[in-house]
Amino acid sequence: MLKQFLEQGREAADAALEQLLPPSTQHPTSIHQAMRHSVFAGGKRLRPILCMEAGRMIAAASGSPTGTLPAGIEQVGAALEMLHTYSLIHDDLPALDNDDLRRGRPTCHKAFGEAIAILAGDGLQTQAYEVLAQLACPPEARVAIIREIAHATGTIDGMIGGQVVDLEAEHKKPDLATLEYIHRSKTAALITASVVSGGMYAGANAKDIAHLRTYGQSIGLAFQIVDDVLDLTQTSEQLGKTAGKDAAAEKTTYPALFGIEESTRKADALVDQACTELEGYGDAASTLKNLARYLVERKK
Amino acid sequence: MLKQFLEQGREAADAALEQLLPPSTQHPTSIHQAMRHSVFAGGKRLRPILCMEAGRMIAAASGSPTGTLPAGIEQVGAALEMLHTYSLIHDDLPALDNDDLRRGRPTCHKAFGEAIAILAGDGLQTQAYEVLAQLACPPEARVAIIREIAHATGTIDGMIGGQVVDLEAEHKKPDLATLEYIHRSKTAALITASVVSGGMYAGANAKDIAHLRTYGQSIGLAFQIVDDVLDLTQTSEQLGKTAGKDAAAEKTTYPALFGIEESTRKADALVDQACTELEGYGDAASTLKNLARYLVERKK
Repeated sequence: MLKQFLEQGREAADAALEQLLPPSTQHPTSIHQAMRHSVFAGGKRLRPILCMEAGRMIAAASGSPTGTLPAGIEQVGAALEMLHTYSLIHDDLPALDNDDLRRGRPTCHKAFGEAIAILAGDGLQTQAYEVLAQLACPPEARVAIIREIAHATGTIDGMIGGQVVDLEAEHKKPDLATLEYIHRSKTAALITASVVSGGMYAGANAKDIAHLRTYGQSIGLAFQIVDDVLDLTQTSEQLGKTAGKDAAAEKTTYPALFGIEESTRKADALVDQACTELEGYGDAASTLKNLARYLVERKK
Repeated sequence: MLKQFLEQGREAADAALEQLLPPSTQHPTSIHQAMRHSVFAGGKRLRPILCMEAGRMIAAASGSPTGTLPAGIEQVGAALEMLHTYSLIHDDLPALDNDDLRRGRPTCHKAFGEAIAILAGDGLQTQAYEVLAQLACPPEARVAIIREIAHATGTIDGMIGGQVVDLEAEHKKPDLATLEYIHRSKTAALITASVVSGGMYAGANAKDIAHLRTYGQSIGLAFQIVDDVLDLTQTSEQLGKTAGKDAAAEKTTYPALFGIEESTRKADALVDQACTELEGYGDAASTLKNLARYLVERKK
């Protein structure tokens, strides 16, 4: 049931990305091919799925029939996926994580060279904002969504800030405050913004947004803890990316600090907390709750 | 007179940048120091100045006293400068132009390393959109400005597209269509968006925007032609960056195709065309006309 839901969500996100990314034949073709290489590399589309489902829940809470997606919300999801992919392309570069493999395929710079990879990442970020500026929701909601997403991917307590601290923490003794900053900023911030922006698209009020934000922060942190655990317990083949990289780089991770069992318990507790936050939405919240459980039970 | 105007514009842009960029002491400090290193490196703030002056002209045309800047417009200018600076940081990287010197100072990757330079460029792009989403103009104007600027810095016929074609054109026989694409996309597109977004901020109508767009395209192309000529005729010391780089890289430039004299004539004709476009605005357009002349007469 959830598997089918995830598959449908992935297809909706892929269709929106197909429509919103310039075609591979668009001049200059090298960069558009590079952008598509990395975007269409078999991602789970977790952020678009969370965004769409948050929008569906908020729409249901205000009387829309359950099961109806707010029209055009998949475009928010596509923009979120473009931003996520840009961060992966840049993180994989030789000057950063120096990864050759991503989701079982050559990374962008391996396939297209470093210059085009840097520019393809830049181009995905730019394209995301061009899409967000033209969403089908009212301009007030569009600027709120852009502000939310830009902040979540920014340098202070967003995605870029998390990546900076992650880089600077390599080969240093783990420290809980640093670890939490990295997890909250590098991964949880964009996951939170995915849920919050989906709600905003569907007309969420301030109270809804506060609930969605807490839900997002909890599942985002749980997601990253599970990611760190999988890096230790799964093979490269299972993950579709190089396993054991965190340990090799002496990265600060949850399992490095607390061990695998305690880390798993922490992730479970965060998911419980996320689900409690949505109690007030009744049945309309059941899919977001199932998604939260799925995040900690996944194997890659 | 124009010199004093340029100085005041630069100061207004600098003050807005100072306020809108995270302080150097903000955690994680390395990236905020890197962003500020490149933003506060003595730029002329040409894009903010054009943006503010276009806004002032449109405000004057709708009855505002000439000389009054629309309140808060310097924030649009600051965002434009952040985007311009991000493109310089990434263009200077070893995988792209591999430049050690920019405005007479070490480039971002020379001062902070490649990883932080890549992320500082990313962070400036992100910060620009966070600023634009919160401008003091109505949400309708904000989304129009974001769409305009994102497209102008994008991969199809914007800044990134121009950079891709520029890279791919090195060591190839010059070709006029390629050259014009590079100039229009890499430089003129953001200069055009600067003028257009300033007009939008001040409430320009569709006819105003069409005039500003043509003015911007003409001065943008003239600016790049003059830049190419200066690369050949000035020393590194005069320019504050490595001179003769285009010729060394066998880059396709206007002077390489047409010679210095014919290129200079072409730039002058474009400036005339830009000024003609603003005839209908009378005295209110005199500063934009002076700025157009300044662009072709400058020495760096």
